[in-house]
Amino acid sequence: MGHGGGGALSAELVQNVFAPAFGGEVLHRLGDAAALSLGGLRLAFSTDSFVVRPLFFPGGSIGDLAVNGTVNDLAVSGARAAYLSCGFILEEGVEIDTVTRVADALGAAARAAGVEVVTGDTKVVEAGHGDGIYINTAGIGLIPAGVDLRPQRVVPGDVVIVSGAIGVHGVAIMSVREGLEFGVEIVSDCAPLGGLVDAMLAVTRDLHMLRDPTRGGLAAALNEVAAAAGAGVVIEERKVPVPPAVANACAVLGLDPMYVANEGKLVAFVPRQHADAVVDAMRAHPRGAEAAIIGEVVRDHPGMVVARTGLGGTRVVDMPLGEQLPRIC
Amino acid sequence: MGHGGGGALSAELVQNVFAPAFGGEVLHRLGDAAALSLGGLRLAFSTDSFVVRPLFFPGGSIGDLAVNGTVNDLAVSGARAAYLSCGFILEEGVEIDTVTRVADALGAAARAAGVEVVTGDTKVVEAGHGDGIYINTAGIGLIPAGVDLRPQRVVPGDVVIVSGAIGVHGVAIMSVREGLEFGVEIVSDCAPLGGLVDAMLAVTRDLHMLRDPTRGGLAAALNEVAAAAGAGVVIEERKVPVPPAVANACAVLGLDPMYVANEGKLVAFVPRQHADAVVDAMRAHPRGAEAAIIGEVVRDHPGMVVARTGLGGTRVVDMPLGEQLPRIC
Repeated sequence: MGHGGGGALSAELVQNVFAPAFGGEVLHRLGDAAALSLGGLRLAFSTDSFVVRPLFFPGGSIGDLAVNGTVNDLAVSGARAAYLSCGFILEEGVEIDTVTRVADALGAAARAAGVEVVTGDTKVVEAGHGDGIYINTAGIGLIPAGVDLRPQRVVPGDVVIVSGAIGVHGVAIMSVREGLEFGVEIVSDCAPLGGLVDAMLAVTRDLHMLRDPTRGGLAAALNEVAAAAGAGVVIEERKVPVPPAVANACAVLGLDPMYVANEGKLVAFVPRQHADAVVDAMRAHPRGAEAAIIGEVVRDHPGMVVARTGLGGTRVVDMPLGEQLPRIC
Repeated sequence: MGHGGGGALSAELVQNVFAPAFGGEVLHRLGDAAALSLGGLRLAFSTDSFVVRPLFFPGGSIGDLAVNGTVNDLAVSGARAAYLSCGFILEEGVEIDTVTRVADALGAAARAAGVEVVTGDTKVVEAGHGDGIYINTAGIGLIPAGVDLRPQRVVPGDVVIVSGAIGVHGVAIMSVREGLEFGVEIVSDCAPLGGLVDAMLAVTRDLHMLRDPTRGGLAAALNEVAAAAGAGVVIEERKVPVPPAVANACAVLGLDPMYVANEGKLVAFVPRQHADAVVDAMRAHPRGAEAAIIGEVVRDHPGMVVARTGLGGTRVVDMPLGEQLPRIC
């Protein structure tokens, strides 16, 4: 299971199996989306498969995830998502009513994200060879001139900004899957980020790097960027927004919110001179109301992420090995 | 299972569930690939999921299918396939060696088809919730100026051409799955069709419609075009190339080769004045050596496909309801 968790084991599979077999120069960059040149245009192209259990959860469904997961990969590459493909793998015996509810959710999410589903495919596998519904989406979008978001542009001095509360999606899934109650219902943050990215790029096109911290959470996202940038990252633990309900649930479940998946948040690496203006623009947008500066990029400990704790100490924030919460997207 | 078979039940699912939920104007055209406008370019965009059993079969593997299935959907829309995405859903416990062999086959097929895999994703599901490996690919390509392939352009008088022997892929899968032997090994025709389409377009850009007859076979492809064109199709049964080994296997298995899937063939609807030149160009290409004119488009019986039998009679070639051979791609 760990090989699908978005952590070190996933990275190993890509680097040892997939990249040697079929990876070219673009795949080796390993961005959230591929930045391509086609007919003189700069395109972003990205794909994700969705195997979440259960299919419906507080705040969304596999249909919402299938849109927002791919749309957000395009958004954090700086592209305006334009078109989606959609492949369904249905398990024999799944209720048509369930398929319809998922399709309706997917359609509503696409309209909310301003993207059109233009091509699709359906396969059916025998009962016991699937799990109700799996969905794959791929998306394409145009990258505006002057936008160049990639971890290699991240340099010491850059400010690290997170767009809001972390850990919400993973805990929402776990609470419904395990039948746990934490006093208040924890609702997934699953949402499209294109509008927020537009607002940030309106401040300056010179953002260095964006990432949506999904599988592996904020910890995996920060580690991937630190490794690719060859720089260190220092964050102030108490500045990372964690809702009390999420903190409580994580304490009960034995989880660290830094490693829990998000589906409607991004982390940005921004030149220091633009940081305050970018945070202001984010806070003026509904998806960034709780945006916060959480740290900075440093010359020390390249490739490593360090958290300053509330008590004045420091701890290393490791790359997760596998996934503490399987099948949350 | 029938809803995934590419026949009438699949069409029902798309028309009653998916199109109302998330279909826009492009999806409603229901082509093999979507023809899009983006930044002033004409793009084709297509997706397919692959759930074939077994993963390896005579003439190919799920990795070859994953490339050629999507590349051919682009080719028959007239586009030059440029980039592929690739999403793997792995079942917990699948051997890394198996994943590596599939990935290697996928890489070799991509190189043979002249397409680059640029973005990917991997998910893992628990043992018993998958079937080794499922793959989704999506592909994008440019449509050259002057190329406009769609069933609405098909008119009475058009000549129907098939690029070679039909029924081979489905029978190859069934023979290995059921452990049947038919004297000679039947090898899948899984292959990329971009080069053949290029050769045809070099004769004239005024081809009306191409389709790759995969699930549902030649019968489903002809019926779909007849319905969308609002015209009738008449074929001469004895002109349809069926290899003796496929005919024998179909007799044993109780199948009609017209309904068996192909993975390296196309059917073309071509204006009469270009038909002979197009067939000559196809026969000069390795993937079209057995190209044959098999029939024509007529004003009579709009939406219906009729075969003239060797005995001088006629029979209706129905749209298949479901899939006689599940999970052949």
